[in-house]
Amino acid sequence: LLTNEQRDRFEVVLVSPRNPLNIGAAARAMANFGFAHLSVVAPYEPHWREAKSAVGAESLLLHARGAQCLNEAVADCTLVIGTGTLEHRKPEQPVVPLPSLAPLIQDKEKIAIVFGPEKRGLTREDLALCHLLVEIPTDPRQPSMNLGQAVAVCLYEFTRQSRSLPSQSSTAADAPSLDSETRANETSIVPAPATAADLDLLAGVVTETMQAANYSPAAMQRANRHDLDLLLRRLTLSGQDVRRILGLFRRILWRIKH
Amino acid sequence: LLTNEQRDRFEVVLVSPRNPLNIGAAARAMANFGFAHLSVVAPYEPHWREAKSAVGAESLLLHARGAQCLNEAVADCTLVIGTGTLEHRKPEQPVVPLPSLAPLIQDKEKIAIVFGPEKRGLTREDLALCHLLVEIPTDPRQPSMNLGQAVAVCLYEFTRQSRSLPSQSSTAADAPSLDSETRANETSIVPAPATAADLDLLAGVVTETMQAANYSPAAMQRANRHDLDLLLRRLTLSGQDVRRILGLFRRILWRIKH
Repeated sequence: LLTNEQRDRFEVVLVSPRNPLNIGAAARAMANFGFAHLSVVAPYEPHWREAKSAVGAESLLLHARGAQCLNEAVADCTLVIGTGTLEHRKPEQPVVPLPSLAPLIQDKEKIAIVFGPEKRGLTREDLALCHLLVEIPTDPRQPSMNLGQAVAVCLYEFTRQSRSLPSQSSTAADAPSLDSETRANETSIVPAPATAADLDLLAGVVTETMQAANYSPAAMQRANRHDLDLLLRRLTLSGQDVRRILGLFRRILWRIKH
Repeated sequence: LLTNEQRDRFEVVLVSPRNPLNIGAAARAMANFGFAHLSVVAPYEPHWREAKSAVGAESLLLHARGAQCLNEAVADCTLVIGTGTLEHRKPEQPVVPLPSLAPLIQDKEKIAIVFGPEKRGLTREDLALCHLLVEIPTDPRQPSMNLGQAVAVCLYEFTRQSRSLPSQSSTAADAPSLDSETRANETSIVPAPATAADLDLLAGVVTETMQAANYSPAAMQRANRHDLDLLLRRLTLSGQDVRRILGLFRRILWRIKH
């Protein structure tokens, strides 16, 4: 079972879910596996209300955070994982099979796993806000999973992995060996990673600078932002990196405008 | 992905499912993970018809085998795995956490995984027909999973395990090493395990013999059969063992009656 500390590391994000039964099933799976933090991005209000008022609705559904856009929902996360069928797309970031996810999430502070709407899945814009994409190994003849079942399978995998891997706190507390001390030292030397909010702020200032500098025609601005979003997530910037680059771009922006 | 041979080793059994949506969701999960063999025991007919006639119903639902009782559904299986919440029961056979199931199913020829009805779960009688019970590691505050989600999680685990473990046929074909030859020899020396139908036949003849011998009062017959079912599954009998014991009991029965 997840410790409280592990539980707080995970945020489940549903983007524009349509079916109240699926919303309820996602919340049920979260409760089954001991997850507590649910965010819902731009839900269709009548269905969202119906899901929350259903008999036996999970309390975590009542306490779910609402957000207008994905960026807002994952603002404090340092790793954003996208899900979905990738058959007809060429993803621009790494794709990891679900059973191989463990080593990639082990040292992350705050992890969001993001599920798109039932029919269409995540948009290209939302995918650009993900550091990596996870793929549930399904049969190519019927690859598309029901939302509630996909959530259940992903959360089962997270708890399975956290059973086999000692949590950082329990290693430090239960076995103060050389190994855990090394790890503690590393933690204090390695700078804190940039959150999604850091990256969003930086992308905004860079975009503004591009426009102020007439970097490219207006028709290209959306494509530029898309490439920038992907680039920033590929770089594994620290929070300090972001602050430095922000300082630079703010200075450039000021010079252009004055 | 499962090879055809692996696929044919697994039978998913739903005992008296009630909700057509859950039946559909179970079939959807099977199609997602490439499983093909579904049996349904004593379904409530109107709901079963509704599930089969639903828009987008999986073809494996249309080809599902019907059975009057669990024994009939698992007749050709050599390992029967029960599922469900075990909170308020003291199971009489081994309970294995789902993530630890791999080594126990690796060398089994035909495996059934059995799911009980939504509200009540498997009966004590049905549980007695299982060699072992599998437990999905859920939170004690909300341990009971939705049927469709439980099926999805179990089948994901089976495919995950078959990805990490080489299948028997691929080992023999791809790498004809000493190891695979040893295994091939073992297969020819180790006698074929008893199927559920073998055990059911034996239990029937032993029960008949008990009655013919006035072994115990009529009020005890149900409890005796229950204990006998459990005992026969604990013994890991081969098919040959069963035929020998059957011969003995038939002889005894003949002598008592004549």
